Parts: sequence; structure tokens; C-alpha cells
Amino acid sequence: MDVIDWLRAALGSDADDGVLSTDPALLDVARADRSGWVADGSPLALVNARTVEHVQATMRAASEFRVPVVPRGAGTGLAGGANGSAGSIVLSLAGMDRILEISTEDQLAVVEPGVINEDLDAALEPFGLFFAPDPASKAISTIGGNIATNAGGLLCAKYGVTREAVLGLDVVLADGRFVRTGHRTVKGVTGYDLTSLLVGSEGTLGVIVGATVRVLPRPQGEPTTLGALFADVRAASDAAARVTAAHLRPAVMELLDAPALERISAYLGEQTIRDAFGAAGGAAYLLVQFDGPTASDDAAAAASVIAETGGTVRVAADAAEGERLLAIRRAFHPALAATGTVLIEDVAVPRSRMPEMFAAIERISRRHGIPIPTVAHAGDGNLHPNFVAPGDGIAPAVWEAAGELFRTAMELGGTLTGEHGVGVLKRRWLAEELGPDSYDLQVKLKSVFDPLGILNPGKVFG
Amino acid sequence: MDVIDWLRAALGSDADDGVLSTDPALLDVARADRSGWVADGSPLALVNARTVEHVQATMRAASEFRVPVVPRGAGTGLAGGANGSAGSIVLSLAGMDRILEISTEDQLAVVEPGVINEDLDAALEPFGLFFAPDPASKAISTIGGNIATNAGGLLCAKYGVTREAVLGLDVVLADGRFVRTGHRTVKGVTGYDLTSLLVGSEGTLGVIVGATVRVLPRPQGEPTTLGALFADVRAASDAAARVTAAHLRPAVMELLDAPALERISAYLGEQTIRDAFGAAGGAAYLLVQFDGPTASDDAAAAASVIAETGGTVRVAADAAEGERLLAIRRAFHPALAATGTVLIEDVAVPRSRMPEMFAAIERISRRHGIPIPTVAHAGDGNLHPNFVAPGDGIAPAVWEAAGELFRTAMELGGTLTGEHGVGVLKRRWLAEELGPDSYDLQVKLKSVFDPLGILNPGKVFG
Repeated sequence: MDVIDWLRAALGSDADDGVLSTDPALLDVARADRSGWVADGSPLALVNARTVEHVQATMRAASEFRVPVVPRGAGTGLAGGANGSAGSIVLSLAGMDRILEISTEDQLAVVEPGVINEDLDAALEPFGLFFAPDPASKAISTIGGNIATNAGGLLCAKYGVTREAVLGLDVVLADGRFVRTGHRTVKGVTGYDLTSLLVGSEGTLGVIVGATVRVLPRPQGEPTTLGALFADVRAASDAAARVTAAHLRPAVMELLDAPALERISAYLGEQTIRDAFGAAGGAAYLLVQFDGPTASDDAAAAASVIAETGGTVRVAADAAEGERLLAIRRAFHPALAATGTVLIEDVAVPRSRMPEMFAAIERISRRHGIPIPTVAHAGDGNLHPNFVAPGDGIAPAVWEAAGELFRTAMELGGTLTGEHGVGVLKRRWLAEELGPDSYDLQVKLKSVFDPLGILNPGKVFG
Repeated sequence: MDVIDWLRAALGSDADDGVLSTDPALLDVARADRSGWVADGSPLALVNARTVEHVQATMRAASEFRVPVVPRGAGTGLAGGANGSAGSIVLSLAGMDRILEISTEDQLAVVEPGVINEDLDAALEPFGLFFAPDPASKAISTIGGNIATNAGGLLCAKYGVTREAVLGLDVVLADGRFVRTGHRTVKGVTGYDLTSLLVGSEGTLGVIVGATVRVLPRPQGEPTTLGALFADVRAASDAAARVTAAHLRPAVMELLDAPALERISAYLGEQTIRDAFGAAGGAAYLLVQFDGPTASDDAAAAASVIAETGGTVRVAADAAEGERLLAIRRAFHPALAATGTVLIEDVAVPRSRMPEMFAAIERISRRHGIPIPTVAHAGDGNLHPNFVAPGDGIAPAVWEAAGELFRTAMELGGTLTGEHGVGVLKRRWLAEELGPDSYDLQVKLKSVFDPLGILNPGKVFG
């Protein structure tokens, strides 16, 4: 009896009812994520879990036969963290997609891991609540994936990262046992914070099968959006820093550099930017959005701070005009995709070091002859340099340039991944950032949870 | 050569310069904290660390001789987490009290662990910034202690617990190695979140010797305070729930029950409450404070919501009147201390279960014949039932009643400690709350960090 037979027996009639699949086409899809990287070889099987018991059966089978398990949500990751490797069982949680509870009194929701982020937000809207974590992929990514990577998004500077939204987790351990961490309360300090340890653990410590998440009252009133064009990215960074220094707290503050703006202009047509601003040109763009009852006052204050730096500011008078300003930012990814294969990178630096990071990106781009259009979540110093190259796949030269970028971010007191995770694609730099003692502790922590090394092996750690 | 000789040699001339002490009076002080509990026997020595090297020398000596080390800040804990046990070395971080950096651009501060919470806040004020974690002890407690217990406070429902304010930690491990966790950035997802794991670990995983903490812009404008008197605690709970349901976000929302209010009236004189309200009476008190630019509008909205529940509401017209309303809450602890020995307890329940928790407190109080005046941070469901008994020390009957209280909190989906920690005093209930699998994981995590079991042994775990 091999692991598949064992698992089929354990799953019973559900196995043939779509829970267990060895369809080569499906296995092939599970080798990839949205990073562009595809794992070598083929997984053994795909489990489309619909219940906690399906997950437990899978982990028991994997323990019995020492077979690797790769937990997977919607497959929208950007670091190769959920790609099904050769000989593994891919454990998809995408089908566990029920919202089990929304409590308006306790301002929390209880969800299965496969719930799409935007679906939870839509379900909360009638109650005047929202789920703050908002990765750019929120229309297609799952909450389980969010939690597994501690995903960020545009709203983090004001509303926090995913970790701060997770109150408790239901987890299946490597050997199939079920544990519940955390509480239905905002506070709670009994023992170590296993919830936070599991958030961002990229499927290497346990399989998340449920989450109790904190939700917040939706900001009141309409948001106010402003856009500003600058002569260069340094001026735009300076403007962003001044908004922060003025103690204004935008919900969104996005910065596009010259190579980004150039491609967006070409993609949307230069007239689009002219229409939005009444003027064209500019080599950097800052998009700022305030929400809540003081949104319009805050936007006016930000506009005057930004104008002092020489930016051409436009405060949207209404939602339609706001949309035009937002559309420029939204065109970033499609505009790049239209010009080549894109490696979306993700570093974070202290806000004060952003100008140095942008200068380094320009230097690295020039030296390697690779365009690196960049968008930054300027409120929290999280930059997405996008390496654009012709043809398919990511060439070694691109990785060499990316490696320089990661080191620069670390030297500036930052990190090689702000919100995407380590996965396979960044594991070779992990030890460099953590240092040997911290790395060693992490490896030992993993073996507490996963003594047989079957949970997403090869991910995060080398 | 014994451990003290070894340590004296390692510390060099600093040993005699006040860093190493075996003064029985000082050792005696180190056996206690603010819980009222005093450890049996005497510690071997007290190290008053002034540098990271002193901490490293201490941990190396302790490893060499297998001697327990009890890390300690200001000794203001309420769970017996920092009490120097027989034969241990007490490692005081209180003397490492420098604020090393305040960055207005990055909105962070770098501090040594012995900095008093309020001192950091005072240092931040000229920059228009503040440090959100605000335990009631903030005038006397250290940031290191805050972090070690993941302390809460009054502002948590709006501004988060200590964990959310900690970006990175400097830590000396059990064997004396130094590691740095986290980043100077808001985002960062390289590897497991060791920072969050250390926050709240009560000195059992490592010794915190430095912290990079997030600071926030001070809310603009003056806060607005309101107080309300109710016929009973259920009506007051209901009012608090309605404030939350109205999506108002008070900075402070404190609830006092009848036994609490009765003692405060006796302590301050009934006239004080009459002066504050223009009327006396009431068997429960709700204090609500809003901050930020919409404070006065929010207070007006809250007042009308509260009035619907039958409460007698008073919105302070100015700071002086606000102070009178706050004074009632502030008198809680002195009023109780005036009537007997007090065990300050600390449970948290989902907000929606607060009325049931208050009912249980009343029941337990009656059954055991022990007064249990209670104050709650109503915004986050964190209750502090205070057991008042005549004489010195905590009688076994009090612990029996407290045990019932903890079990009720757990049954209601809450926890036996919201913000004080487990220490020695709650360790016997820890396994009950965590369950055997989670407890087992935690014990194994500890042994990754502390294979010799020298870091605060006997605390948290039995």
C-alpha cells in the first residue's frame, strides 16, 4: 500500500467525490504560483480539502509515509511558497471557503481558510465593518494565504498588517492533531503567542484550517484622494516623508518612480495623465488617500505640505476624479506586463531611507541594464521594484541584480521581504538577513512543530 | 569556584561597583512583586545590569553552573513572574534605562529595557508623538516588563496591545549569545516572528536588553470625557456594548460595578460623585474618553446612545470637569487598598459576554463571602475582579474563588489573563486553558531557547 492508497482509504467516499485527485493537468497547475516560478517534477496528488477531517487524514498519511505536504490556497503567492514539488501531496484549502460567523458585537469573523479576502469584506459591508488586510491580490487571494504569508497591502501603515488582524487560529499539526490558538478576545497573554508564530510561517509549521479575525468599523464618510506629480523620485519621497512628519495618517500613500510612470503613460496614453492633472509630465507620482470623518481636511493639509516640495498637486473634488487618480496607480502592473516578463520584488526599508533605496534601484538598473520600475507603499517604506525582462522566465542575471537589491535593503536597516514571504525564491538570502543564531533558532522551532520535516520542506529554509 | 566567584571574575571591577550584590535586604526585596506574593527562600545574588555585557556574563555564569536566572524590571508585576526564587540569580534590567534614539521620520524609538513607560512618553511629547501601551502602572513600570508580559492598559481597544508596538528586540539568549529580532520597518516577513514570540514570554525564552518600538502621532485636540451612572452593571455593560455597536471608538472605556462604586464613594466621600454628576447614587459607572479631532462629536453621539439605556450621563464641558469624572475611576485601587488585602485579578472575555461575566463574579462573590469589586476595560472585555480580604496574604479560599472565576472566563471563550501574565500565580490553570497539545508545544518551544532550563524556571509552566 502506498501513500495514495492509504489516503484514499482514509478519505473514504469523499476521495472519489473530488477530494483526491491525480489528474496530471491539475497537478501541473499546482506546480506554479504567480511569481512565474514553476517547481520541477510533479506532485503525487492533490487533496481538495473540504473539511478539517480531510486535512487531518492528509497529514496522517503524510506522517505515515514521510511524504511532503504543500499547503496551498489560491496559488497567488509571489515567492514560490505554495508550489507543489516533486513527490509531494498538494493540500488545497481553497474549497474550505465558508464564512462561519460574523459577530458585530465582538467585531470579529470566523472563517475557513479558503475565503477570498474580498468576499469577507463584501460580507462585512452591510454591518458597516471591514477586514483591514488588503493585499493587491485581494480579489483572488485567500485569507489563509494572507495569514500564511502575513500579507500586507496598501492600508498597512494606518491599519496594520495581517498579524494584527488575527485573534486565533485553528491548526492541523504535522501529525494530524488539531489545535486551537488564541482567543475571541482582543487581549490574552496565556503562554507563548502561537498565533503570531503561525502567522507568516508559510505552511512550514502547521496547516491553518480556520481563523478568528478582528474586523473594524468602516471609516465614516467618503475618502478624499489626491495625486501629485514631481520632477524626480527624490522630491516625491520627500513629499511622502513630510506628510508623515505632519502627523497626517493617510489610508493609502503610493509612490511611482520615473520608469513606472513612463510605462503607465505609454500604456494608458499620455492624455490620461493630462486629463487627471490638467498638465502632463512629471517623473514621479504620489497617490494619497485619506478616509474617515476628517478626510477632506487632511487631504487639504497634505496638499499644502506636498506643494511646498514643488509637486503639482491635484485634490479630487469627487469620486470620479478620485478614480482617475487611482487609475494611474492601478495601471502599474498591466503596463509592465505589456512590456515583458516581470519579477515583482518586495523589500522594505525604514521610511527615512526610501530616497537611498530609490537611488540604489536606479544604480542597479543601470549597471545590469534591466529596467526596474518601482511602486512603493510610501507610508511604510515597502517598495516593489519590478524587474522587467524580455522573453519567458527569470534569467540568472535578473536574480543577480535582485540579490544586490536585497543586500542594499538589509544594509539600510530593512528586509528582503516586506509582505510576500520567503518561499523558495528568497531562501538563499534568509540566513544573511537573520544571522546564524537567529536562523538556527528558527530551524529548531520548525522541528518542534514538524519533527519529520514533511510540512512544505524546501520552503523558507534551504 | 562557585557561580558567584565566577560571575565576579567575569564582571571585573563593575562587580564591586554595584553591579553584583548579595546584600540580604536587596535580595529580600527581589523576592516580591506587586501581587502580594513573596517567593520562598532567598536568591543567591542580584545583578544590577548596566550593559548588555553584564547580562551576557550573567547568562554565561548561569549556564556554566546551571543556576536559575530571574529577569526583573521594576518589580511591578501582578502574577509573580519576576520574583527571585531560592538559589537563583536575580537579573535586574532596571538600571539599563536609556532612551537611545527617537526617530520622528520613522516614528520609532530605540530604548533600553529599564526605561519607565511614562518617561518614554514624556520624551516623545515634544515631538507630538506618544507610546501607546499604557498599563495602569506606567508611572513606575518599565518597557522591558511591558514587553515581557505583553502588557495592556486602558488604550488597547483603540491603539493595540504592547505586541503591536514592538518592531524589534535585542535579546541575550540563555547561553549568553546576543540576537536581534525584527526590523526598523513596519513590515517584514523574513522567517518566523521571533519578536512576537518573545513578547509576553515572561523571561522564560531570553533576556530583553533593547527594544525598537513604534510610536504614534499624538491625537490632535483635547480629549472629551464623559461619565455615566447606571442602576446596575448590566445596564452599564449594555451601554458600553452600544457605544461599540455605534462604531464609536473611544480611547478609554472603563466600567465600575456596584461593589467598586460603593467603596469609591466611601473613600472619596459621596459628595464627590454628587459634585461630578449633580446627582448621587447609581450602582455602576461607565467612564468614556474620546480623543482626536472628532472627540467632542463622538462624545455627544456616545452620550445619546448611553442615555437610551437609562444611564445618567454627564459630558465634561472642560478639562477640569473631565478630571472629576476620571478621579472616580482612579480612586478604585486606593479605595480598595483602604479596606483590606487585595488580589488584583485579570480575565478577558469576548465583549458580548461581559454581562455573563459580571453575573458570575456576583455569584462567586456571594458563594464565597468575598467582596469582588471589579473594574473592566469595557472596550476590550478585560475585567479586573479584585478580591478583597482582611489581614495579610492571600488565603486559599480566595484562590478557590479565583479559580472558579478563571474557569468561567474560559467557558465564555475568554482567557485567565488578559494582560498581567501567568507567572507563578496562574501557572496551575495554564494547561487547562491551552489544552494538552498546545501546552506540549509551548514546553518544547521553551526548550529550544533554554535547553538547560535556567531562564525563570517555575514561571508560566508548572
